[in-house]
Amino acid sequence: MQAVLRALGTSARFTLRLGQTVFSTALLLFMCLDVEFYSYTSFSYLVTVMGLVTPWSMSLALVDAYFVFVKGLPRQPRVLLVVIVGDWALSFLSLAATCSTASVTSLLVNVSSTYYPSNICSRYQLSAAMAFMSWFLSFDSILFNLWLLPSL
Amino acid sequence: MQAVLRALGTSARFTLRLGQTVFSTALLLFMCLDVEFYSYTSFSYLVTVMGLVTPWSMSLALVDAYFVFVKGLPRQPRVLLVVIVGDWALSFLSLAATCSTASVTSLLVNVSSTYYPSNICSRYQLSAAMAFMSWFLSFDSILFNLWLLPSL
Repeated sequence: MQAVLRALGTSARFTLRLGQTVFSTALLLFMCLDVEFYSYTSFSYLVTVMGLVTPWSMSLALVDAYFVFVKGLPRQPRVLLVVIVGDWALSFLSLAATCSTASVTSLLVNVSSTYYPSNICSRYQLSAAMAFMSWFLSFDSILFNLWLLPSL
Repeated sequence: MQAVLRALGTSARFTLRLGQTVFSTALLLFMCLDVEFYSYTSFSYLVTVMGLVTPWSMSLALVDAYFVFVKGLPRQPRVLLVVIVGDWALSFLSLAATCSTASVTSLLVNVSSTYYPSNICSRYQLSAAMAFMSWFLSFDSILFNLWLLPSL
């Protein structure tokens, strides 16, 4: 029973990590194929944070895939602690970046629809939506991490 | 030793709650004495969230003051759970509101210094700084709450 629950937990975490990787990569592509993002502080901040989130969740997805598909190694408490603290920090950073981006985008859409072509604004809106999805998945993984805390 | 530690913890929490109350009240005064805040989505959101944070932290400060100065009643797990979940939710909401406000303020300061009188912009900046202080204290109290989790 314990082993089945642990395997279920690991595959759920693997799915969450995969989703984070997909959304943050798509966001980076959306933002960076547009050349104007660095003229706004919040968009630059979002790209920086997502540039941290993407490799983090990609490597953890690889580790979880190894656990799921190959074999379940015993987890080491020190590694778990690093993963939990890193998840917390990245979740807070990406929430901050997401909200900044969303509010700046909404302001740009409302105020200056005459100055900007509408396709750029809708691209910013799509990026904000993807950042929210990525944050939501990372929030789910810190909730999952709460179950790992007692094993520390 | 246990009792001394618990008393120290309670007075530290009381100080944190008091700080949150002071900062969020000051922010509300700063924002609401200015009549233009409701024309921006993020400022309205910030005022809404801080209108939730102020009574929450004020009532918890009163409870903690009762614990510190009058007597230490035994804590009830159900009440503790409500406090912990509420702190988490309010901390995330206030981080989101704070970052939205900060980014919109920075955009307003950079872009439209010709349209706005500078004293309004500096008032928004002060409000954003106070929102950050209030969020920082509420983050400290959710870190303190982690010590309470094992007693649930």
